[in-house]
Amino acid sequence: MKTVYSPLHHGHSGYFEFCNGAFVPGFEKPVRAEFIRSRIEEVGLGPILAPVAHGIGPAQGVHTADYLAFLADAWTLWTAMDRHTPALPMVWPIPGLRADKPPKSIDGLLGFYSLDTGAPIVAGTYPAVVASLESAITAADLVRNGERAAFALCRPPGHHAGSRFMGGYCYVNNAAAAAQHFRDNGAARVAILDVDYHHGNGTQEIFYSRADVMVVNLHGDPLTEYPFLLGHADEHGSGPGEGFNVNYPMPHGTDYAVWGAALDDACRKVAAYKPDVVVVSLGVDTFEKDPISHFLLKTPDYPKIGRRIAELGLPTLFVMEGGYAVAEIAVNAVGVLTGFEGE
Amino acid sequence: MKTVYSPLHHGHSGYFEFCNGAFVPGFEKPVRAEFIRSRIEEVGLGPILAPVAHGIGPAQGVHTADYLAFLADAWTLWTAMDRHTPALPMVWPIPGLRADKPPKSIDGLLGFYSLDTGAPIVAGTYPAVVASLESAITAADLVRNGERAAFALCRPPGHHAGSRFMGGYCYVNNAAAAAQHFRDNGAARVAILDVDYHHGNGTQEIFYSRADVMVVNLHGDPLTEYPFLLGHADEHGSGPGEGFNVNYPMPHGTDYAVWGAALDDACRKVAAYKPDVVVVSLGVDTFEKDPISHFLLKTPDYPKIGRRIAELGLPTLFVMEGGYAVAEIAVNAVGVLTGFEGE
Ligand SMILES: [Zn+2]
Ligand SMILES: [Zn+2]
Repeated sequence: MKTVYSPLHHGHSGYFEFCNGAFVPGFEKPVRAEFIRSRIEEVGLGPILAPVAHGIGPAQGVHTADYLAFLADAWTLWTAMDRHTPALPMVWPIPGLRADKPPKSIDGLLGFYSLDTGAPIVAGTYPAVVASLESAITAADLVRNGERAAFALCRPPGHHAGSRFMGGYCYVNNAAAAAQHFRDNGAARVAILDVDYHHGNGTQEIFYSRADVMVVNLHGDPLTEYPFLLGHADEHGSGPGEGFNVNYPMPHGTDYAVWGAALDDACRKVAAYKPDVVVVSLGVDTFEKDPISHFLLKTPDYPKIGRRIAELGLPTLFVMEGGYAVAEIAVNAVGVLTGFEGE
Repeated sequence: MKTVYSPLHHGHSGYFEFCNGAFVPGFEKPVRAEFIRSRIEEVGLGPILAPVAHGIGPAQGVHTADYLAFLADAWTLWTAMDRHTPALPMVWPIPGLRADKPPKSIDGLLGFYSLDTGAPIVAGTYPAVVASLESAITAADLVRNGERAAFALCRPPGHHAGSRFMGGYCYVNNAAAAAQHFRDNGAARVAILDVDYHHGNGTQEIFYSRADVMVVNLHGDPLTEYPFLLGHADEHGSGPGEGFNVNYPMPHGTDYAVWGAALDDACRKVAAYKPDVVVVSLGVDTFEKDPISHFLLKTPDYPKIGRRIAELGLPTLFVMEGGYAVAEIAVNAVGVLTGFEGE
């Protein structure tokens, strides 16, 4: 399996996040991608390619134009205020405030286009975001051109980013943009299977009223887990999208016996949808030792995930999402890929 | 003029806030209230009374029951997670997420009931919030019982708190609760005049569709100033409240020549409404030296504000809101009150 990777992700680093009442160094850091890259070389998964330059264009089908313009300009606007710390928002467009009228100041804009405090912007963020998107699109093109599967080693991840908001370490929704890219190039139906520990709220939001992209999520129950405010089992899609959104929220302490059964059910729903291609939002923060999550999957479980997805017999694009136990993230993520390949 | 004050506000302290990209000690700190208290004694404004115990009850007319229950429980839920830092939210119910289904975990609840990162909760927060509300209600009762005016030296302030959210240093909307208290005790119409530098988004939200409480705000234009997402001139109220919400957004650099003209216009609108009582949300962060604001009012301007409000000839309750240049906040806030009394 070929991997697409850009070193530009290194520029997106050096920020802090708010966690459990303290301001701590971000869990989503460059070493995550580097561990995976090394592991790919170690196991000989296949060649590692640089992304083809596409720019932000392929994001335009899944994000609003004003949001993408904000992402491009945010660091410039922030530094124009003579600020040099990572840019973070301070107020959010909750019910009772207006989400229809963007403010002019960067402090207001950061919140207007966010769902949380988890998407800091530094000098290298936008180049990293574009390269991450380009990696997803380039890997999608490998699949479009005949590869059974490909792996987009995206960083930053994307599944929390919605049509007009960043958050949860995510800026552009790489998996959503790749799905849209498949749709724009001949695929009639695309399924997105999100196996990250956290609900892919952005992906759900983007496709919620569409029948041409099915979104299936397996994740920690939002009653007790980030992002808290989306991902319940009663969210089935709306309008033409009714029935094409499926959530499997699971409680803290879920192990592979339960999780794998949910995956099996999810895969049967995906198969029944008869998609032309499957996009897997691949997070491995389901791991028992992940520092911010509460599932109990073990290293030998990850190849099983890959094998079950391979049984669908469909062209498959893997897009990297979360996973924060840096020592093991690589073994587990690559384990899914080698499992898919039947090794 | 009598003042109502409780020392319980001291327990609400010791937290940090996020400002201009840095985590800094909160601007809203106990010394603010103490400077004002000392100044009241210095100029001999009148007696300083303790609030009558009412508990949280008088907030029930302006906040939802679930929000008030959250406020009461938040610190207990937070410390039950073995956390001892100030409680802060991490994700918000923006469009695309759900505001209809409260999560169970405290991390989710803090965001579900917030608009920003500006309302940290510590051990003494809830007692201080209740005492602040009680001060407003006790001062309102002084006015109901015949005083021409009274001053509620509230801390924490209230005008950013909405029907179901905290934020901007505010938890319970003291001015709104006092206005409701007047309504519940015979006043047919109440006007709230908010002269704080920041738009009183919570007060506007609470009364937006009601004709019995007029809300008038003079404030920094939300295009460039916190809270950014409410307070535009085109917000006139809705349904039965149409025409009973008035905003005067003004740009950075506004001085008293412009601000005072807006106040004069606002007072004429209040007079035309013929309220039984006026509640003044008294912020003095309009001061030229305020550390987080951008208007240019000078110390001699504050008595003019009081005089103009006195010309309305109506029973008047002053409720303390913001103001952060601690050395001058007291002179300016008390200057409004002595100006009102014609001194
Ligand atoms: Zn995750
Ligand atoms: Zn203020």
